[in-house]
Amino acid sequence: MKNFCLTVQYDGSRYKGWAKQKNLENTIQGKLENIMSKLFNKNVEVLGSGRTDAGVHAKGQVCNFHVDSDLSAQEVMDYANTYLPEDIAVVDAKEASERFHARYNVGSKKYVYTIDNASKPNVFQRKYTWNIPGKLNLKAMRIAASNLVGTFDFTSFTDLTKTNKSTIKTIEKIEIEKKGDFIFISVKGDGFLYHMVRIIVGTLVEVGKGERTPESIIATLKEKCRREAGALAPAKGLCLEKVYY
Amino acid sequence: MKNFCLTVQYDGSRYKGWAKQKNLENTIQGKLENIMSKLFNKNVEVLGSGRTDAGVHAKGQVCNFHVDSDLSAQEVMDYANTYLPEDIAVVDAKEASERFHARYNVGSKKYVYTIDNASKPNVFQRKYTWNIPGKLNLKAMRIAASNLVGTFDFTSFTDLTKTNKSTIKTIEKIEIEKKGDFIFISVKGDGFLYHMVRIIVGTLVEVGKGERTPESIIATLKEKCRREAGALAPAKGLCLEKVYY
Repeated sequence: MKNFCLTVQYDGSRYKGWAKQKNLENTIQGKLENIMSKLFNKNVEVLGSGRTDAGVHAKGQVCNFHVDSDLSAQEVMDYANTYLPEDIAVVDAKEASERFHARYNVGSKKYVYTIDNASKPNVFQRKYTWNIPGKLNLKAMRIAASNLVGTFDFTSFTDLTKTNKSTIKTIEKIEIEKKGDFIFISVKGDGFLYHMVRIIVGTLVEVGKGERTPESIIATLKEKCRREAGALAPAKGLCLEKVYY
Repeated sequence: MKNFCLTVQYDGSRYKGWAKQKNLENTIQGKLENIMSKLFNKNVEVLGSGRTDAGVHAKGQVCNFHVDSDLSAQEVMDYANTYLPEDIAVVDAKEASERFHARYNVGSKKYVYTIDNASKPNVFQRKYTWNIPGKLNLKAMRIAASNLVGTFDFTSFTDLTKTNKSTIKTIEKIEIEKKGDFIFISVKGDGFLYHMVRIIVGTLVEVGKGERTPESIIATLKEKCRREAGALAPAKGLCLEKVYY
């Protein structure tokens, strides 16, 4: 039995997200499982490091699956890339140890959210950015972000409704960089709740516009109430950059 | 009478090129003229620095038009950006001197051609790159390119069929850079013939694959025959980067 581990890149624009759904073909996991099931002539379950929402992109999603096969990781990758649509690509493949599990073994994840700060969105990046014309105070946004780094109950920053899941997460680092008109907000942490990165970004943007103070974030965390945080940032600006094991 | 000069960015994927055509709405010039004609309530002719082919992109196409108006350049730009589709944007607008002409006054132009050298094309750049998996000898390509720098008769490197146009052009510089999987070929010159950059790129790629020697380019130029040069590179990898006046 081999345990193949794939790194997958996708333009999420036309997909319903990573996770397969009943009667919904159009998911990344669904596409991969269909192709792998054909290759191995049996049902293959492809386990991702976690879900990404509809419209969210990935440069480094990681997944694995067990299968009895003589094929090499390179052969599996080449087969996948031959049959995958042009907006999904396997960029790395290797054999992992038998016990490796793409979700359970996650050490941390890095997401990058991209804002296009130009008055009209860049035509080449329009599907991968959130266009916000007008001045954003990056210094205030960085101070606000620093208040989110650490181990906290992130209930205010999730649309999660299940109550059996821990809402305590650790954010290791938030970096906010500007290059030309683009603002990159990268968030690295041990795990993320439903909508967490997008609500963090939406809240930081409100700080950047002067609608909230950087210090108010401390109270926002303490309130443990979704309404206290900012708006949900659009999916298209978000990208799962890297999963660390 | 004002002479507005606009810098225009476009994703050329779904257009029939810059130049308007009879019965063909889908050109960049056509879109701009329609919008400007509505704004000024009269037929406006928008003069570009030159044509770009169907599927070719631009970061810095320049155009101008004369019109009697009280509007500022900023107001014209804002109006255009409100009504242009999301794959065309005006990124700069100013009032030029009365005699400025976007085509006649061109000093030089820079095109950048992007090759994606990965085994499967990058999903985010797939519409803006030519995917060529496998090894390309960049050193040989750079030597070949150096043989094209200077003033030559570029008849071998054009699909131009009109005979009343000069085929003598000057290439000031060709740079070939690799960043990650991407190879950027930038070509700067005083003017370019029909398909010239794409045939140059197609020829350089054949050198990179070892199908031609770098020195053979000298004979290719001298032959003044299209068949002597390489294949036409796909439109989607080409971008008009900047026009110099």
